[in-house]
Amino acid sequence: MGLFTRDIQSMEDMFEHGLKDVYYAEQQIVESLPKLIDKAASEQLKEGLENHLSETRGQVDRLEQVFEKIGIQLGTADCPAIDGLIKEADSVVGEVGDEDVMDAAIVGAAQAVEHYEIARYGTLIAWAEELGHKAVVPLLTTNLKEEKAADEKLNELALQKGLNREAAS
Amino acid sequence: MGLFTRDIQSMEDMFEHGLKDVYYAEQQIVESLPKLIDKAASEQLKEGLENHLSETRGQVDRLEQVFEKIGIQLGTADCPAIDGLIKEADSVVGEVGDEDVMDAAIVGAAQAVEHYEIARYGTLIAWAEELGHKAVVPLLTTNLKEEKAADEKLNELALQKGLNREAAS
Repeated sequence: MGLFTRDIQSMEDMFEHGLKDVYYAEQQIVESLPKLIDKAASEQLKEGLENHLSETRGQVDRLEQVFEKIGIQLGTADCPAIDGLIKEADSVVGEVGDEDVMDAAIVGAAQAVEHYEIARYGTLIAWAEELGHKAVVPLLTTNLKEEKAADEKLNELALQKGLNREAAS
Repeated sequence: MGLFTRDIQSMEDMFEHGLKDVYYAEQQIVESLPKLIDKAASEQLKEGLENHLSETRGQVDRLEQVFEKIGIQLGTADCPAIDGLIKEADSVVGEVGDEDVMDAAIVGAAQAVEHYEIARYGTLIAWAEELGHKAVVPLLTTNLKEEKAADEKLNELALQKGLNREAAS
């Protein structure tokens, strides 16, 4: 199912490995977002995360289209990075008592995950362009734009809507 | 030495935890960058990573000033996220045979680490402002700007200087 890293010899192999890494990561996010949604106190934050969960399901579908267009078998690769990000999110939000502090922790954890995906999609788009896989660039770019917009929305929530101000008071 | 996540009750606790997390992360990066520098084939990439290693040492110093200004004891927190990012970097770059593919892998791995730090410093700056720790905002902002600039330089290397083009040919 996975691609062993020792099999990476060409840019095509690495592109395939990167796709399988992010496909695994998006699936883990679909599994872990409901826990954050449950714990969020602010209605705006809850709604924002629910929207992003539905967006993430769409991103998984788009990645499946990428595999199909490239002609490689659907699969996942080990991704210790997303495992670590989610473990850290779970451990920080798992123990916070105060609900405003919890919301600020959730925003921080979610933004770290968004940034991981922003980095990965940026890299995959560069590799797809170099390899001439032009048909999949729009799909990957849509996912990248959604991740950037989600990060921006979390920034707004954290900075403009006083989420941290409530927690610091 | 660490702060257990179960001790996080207030925004101050969470800010302290976040500082210890990024202090640990920067130290791990100082330890792991030399391995990437050794493996990089492109002279430009090697130089870019060497510059960033020296910047990262400066960032560690700046974080130590933040601890001092806030009046908290220097320490680290567990950071499964950076551990996962570094593990993933090591596993991907560890097995690539072709040196141009290796360089592209190194750029991708380094950008994922930069984005983690960009997310963390963004969050810490927001929390410092909310908590009224104005004296440390410039220190954290300098670190954030350096991380963003490092990510931009890696983008340039990957996109404009044909690093991936060589690897795809």
